[in-house]
Amino acid sequence: MTDFLQPDARYSLALNKDELTVYVREVFPQSGTYRWSVEELVPGSIKVAMEIDDDHLRPGGTVSGPTMFALADVAAYLVILGHIGKVALAVTTSLNINFLAKPPAGNLQAECRLIKLGKRLATCEVHITGAHDNNIVAQATATYSIPPRD
Amino acid sequence: MTDFLQPDARYSLALNKDELTVYVREVFPQSGTYRWSVEELVPGSIKVAMEIDDDHLRPGGTVSGPTMFALADVAAYLVILGHIGKVALAVTTSLNINFLAKPPAGNLQAECRLIKLGKRLATCEVHITGAHDNNIVAQATATYSIPPRD
Amino acid sequence: MTDFLQPDARYSLALNKDELTVYVREVFPQSGTYRWSVEELVPGSIKVAMEIDDDHLRPGGTVSGPTMFALADVAAYLVILGHIGKVALAVTTSLNINFLAKPPAGNLQAECRLIKLGKRLATCEVHITGAHDNNIVAQATATYSIPPRD
Amino acid sequence: MTDFLQPDARYSLALNKDELTVYVREVFPQSGTYRWSVEELVPGSIKVAMEIDDDHLRPGGTVSGPTMFALADVAAYLVILGHIGKVALAVTTSLNINFLAKPPAGNLQAECRLIKLGKRLATCEVHITGAHDNNIVAQATATYSIPPRD
Repeated sequence: MTDFLQPDARYSLALNKDELTVYVREVFPQSGTYRWSVEELVPGSIKVAMEIDDDHLRPGGTVSGPTMFALADVAAYLVILGHIGKVALAVTTSLNINFLAKPPAGNLQAECRLIKLGKRLATCEVHITGAHDNNIVAQATATYSIPPRD
Repeated sequence: MTDFLQPDARYSLALNKDELTVYVREVFPQSGTYRWSVEELVPGSIKVAMEIDDDHLRPGGTVSGPTMFALADVAAYLVILGHIGKVALAVTTSLNINFLAKPPAGNLQAECRLIKLGKRLATCEVHITGAHDNNIVAQATATYSIPPRD
Repeated sequence: MTDFLQPDARYSLALNKDELTVYVREVFPQSGTYRWSVEELVPGSIKVAMEIDDDHLRPGGTVSGPTMFALADVAAYLVILGHIGKVALAVTTSLNINFLAKPPAGNLQAECRLIKLGKRLATCEVHITGAHDNNIVAQATATYSIPPRD
Repeated sequence: MTDFLQPDARYSLALNKDELTVYVREVFPQSGTYRWSVEELVPGSIKVAMEIDDDHLRPGGTVSGPTMFALADVAAYLVILGHIGKVALAVTTSLNINFLAKPPAGNLQAECRLIKLGKRLATCEVHITGAHDNNIVAQATATYSIPPRD
């Protein structure tokens, strides 16, 4: 439903979708606890899907907060590395998340857009929806610190 | 290092530490993915420990963001239920987390203090430190929505 | 630069731009400390301009944080009342703001989009830019509480 | 009501209360729009009072969001400069504020505590109460960027 996935001429990619996926699975194998995949990557934004199973639920049958946090956080990491390349040690410095509605049963997806890509800090907005739905169930703003590079 | 665990006369407990633990393990078994335990519970605040294993690490050997989010979120859920009783369906409406320092190797703990306990909303501050350390590695503010009760 | 001002078919307006302006100036005269005007109002989003003078600057000649907070906050109030009508007592419950770049000299504008409009809570994203620029200098997420209506 | 104003042995002051006040009034005269004064300054924390007049109110007679934002923001600026000295160009990078209760009539105060003081970033927690009250009406977390020094 969002318009995040329009290419934004101010940005250019450093990695394509497959290079990005291979690299992040290699340097961050623990992210595999959450079964994510990159659906789309364009200059300025990304769409990431996440498979949800029973381990990710909380009372009431809703997807747990840590699972949605993990989706927002990995989407931000992926979109940033998609634009800056193989900088594994980029780390989250802050993340603000609003849980807006009960997620539908089934898988989730995140659309994540860069709103600043500086040398040291990058900030993104993330919208989480059901896989086949356009109602925003969670919204996040994440800031990452980018380590100095040679 | 914080002074959260001074009893605050404006609050009174609805459950003791053991009742709270038994109840949350029962209604929220998925929280057991993260091996938490309640160390202390006093009017107004709580201390929660979390065992960290390799699944909770990210590149650079640091504890992952979702793990610290989960610790902040469960600490807030526990302190709120400790004061309002068996209200399983309290849900996080927003959580803002700042990652301040690289966590030390080993387990983590959270000290969490109520700053508002209203009928419909409760807000807490959370400080995460190493288990044997008093340097704050992450700070969070969480707001929960409390469903109407009979 | 943002695409906020595309009409969103999920929303419909309760007031037009002029009705909204007259009403808010009447019930919230103190907002006039900040010289705002509604530039555009469409279903789902709004554009609000703010005139900046020397009182709104901080060391280094940059627009002060409270000024940008005020712009984000009034834009959120305006877009919500544009959709729910004359509910003066809607109040901010939380606002998270990221200051991303030094604002250019001159006036500012905010584009603000509803991401949830519930019965009791409404949440918006806000992007602040210079008046003739599309670089985002501040990004905010605001949640308002809407009082019960007859 | 908070315990912020216990001296924290991990911190030491660079300026005393009067030096700090004189310096900030000089480099940031616009902050005088909000009539603040430093009540107490100890290693690790500060108490700042703010006089409220009619210009700072919003519909319903409550203190406006920008006013409480300004109080939180200036308290953070003051506590940081109290510890790092005359670094006028420290700037807010993010501020998250929760409005918890309707403020009482009259003046406000903020207690603000450092939770991290790094070389480049400093983070504080702020509790805003009435001047003669200990009910927290707003809670904020602020992060400032500290420019490199010679």
